Amino acid sequence: MLKLAIFGSGSGTNCQAIINAVEAGTLNAEIKCILSDVEDAVILERARKHNIPAICFNCAPFKTKLDGEGERVVLQTLKEHDVDFIALAGFMRIVKEGLLNAYAGRIVNIHPSLLPSFPGLDSGKQAFDYGVKITGCTVHFVDSGIDTGAIINQRMITIEDSDTLASMMDKLHAQEHIAYPEALQWIADRRTTLK
Amino acid sequence: MLKLAIFGSGSGTNCQAIINAVEAGTLNAEIKCILSDVEDAVILERARKHNIPAICFNCAPFKTKLDGEGERVVLQTLKEHDVDFIALAGFMRIVKEGLLNAYAGRIVNIHPSLLPSFPGLDSGKQAFDYGVKITGCTVHFVDSGIDTGAIINQRMITIEDSDTLASMMDKLHAQEHIAYPEALQWIADRRTTLK
Repeated sequence: MLKLAIFGSGSGTNCQAIINAVEAGTLNAEIKCILSDVEDAVILERARKHNIPAICFNCAPFKTKLDGEGERVVLQTLKEHDVDFIALAGFMRIVKEGLLNAYAGRIVNIHPSLLPSFPGLDSGKQAFDYGVKITGCTVHFVDSGIDTGAIINQRMITIEDSDTLASMMDKLHAQEHIAYPEALQWIADRRTTLK
Repeated sequence: MLKLAIFGSGSGTNCQAIINAVEAGTLNAEIKCILSDVEDAVILERARKHNIPAICFNCAPFKTKLDGEGERVVLQTLKEHDVDFIALAGFMRIVKEGLLNAYAGRIVNIHPSLLPSFPGLDSGKQAFDYGVKITGCTVHFVDSGIDTGAIINQRMITIEDSDTLASMMDKLHAQEHIAYPEALQWIADRRTTLK
């Protein structure tokens, strides 16, 4: 059973999909805590609603990464909650060596494109503006690059001429909510490990 | 009706798929000629078998592009055969300004990846080695970049744990043989044009 921490900065819909899979018994994991760098992030409300420890941490003085004192606090928190695996779900900061080394091969992320296409920010809009006819989402191990880690799972959608960015994103989110719990269960099953 | 020329350097299986679609009446095109930079390319045998003019041209002294005297000969050949649209099908040379300008918005190519992932050579192997779970093919307009032109059609395959590069490529080619005639018919229908 995975002893999971989920990190997010926003609404946490992928986090909710993971919570739902655990509660439905389709994902063999225990969510030990949910962490956010944003005090009023909806993801923390979701945690509290499901009686999961909701933890906010401060990343200052850094704007875009989790490093230094913030990273130290996070590592201590993960230890206290007996976490052995980390799922990033809309966590808008770059994870640095301290956490990567402590949880080597045990941090995963979901990205809203078929990587290696459209890494970085605003991937959905990048794909829509490029004019691709097929896009999707990627669950991958996190390494020190930006969206470069080994791929665990991908699911696709088609973009029709009638789609708007909003309708495309709705379809994409629906696939993310399948792909992420599925990938985590493959890891819980030891079907997937990082070589 | 498209008055089509097909360019290729190899076995021409995508060319064959286009020939088949024309003969089946599902692609509203006439194949005016098939051209190759390789004298003994199988694509030229396919042309002769279907009574389509088979034309070999010499690209020397250039190794990787169609330019200079070779380009001049090609442009003359296309004019003589009343060609108004060009489909590249495994043509291993870079098309340069002379042809791009003469057939602006009227040259398309098929590429064995879901662009913008894996442009350039050996895309199938690139994708397989990267470990993507979904790949596919892209029919796109040709511009002066390498595989950067506007996308017309994409079709996907999944890569299973049991797949080899060879089994993956078999699946990919099958999708290419659907995607390319389909995209050309969209152009013949004027459903798709380059803006």
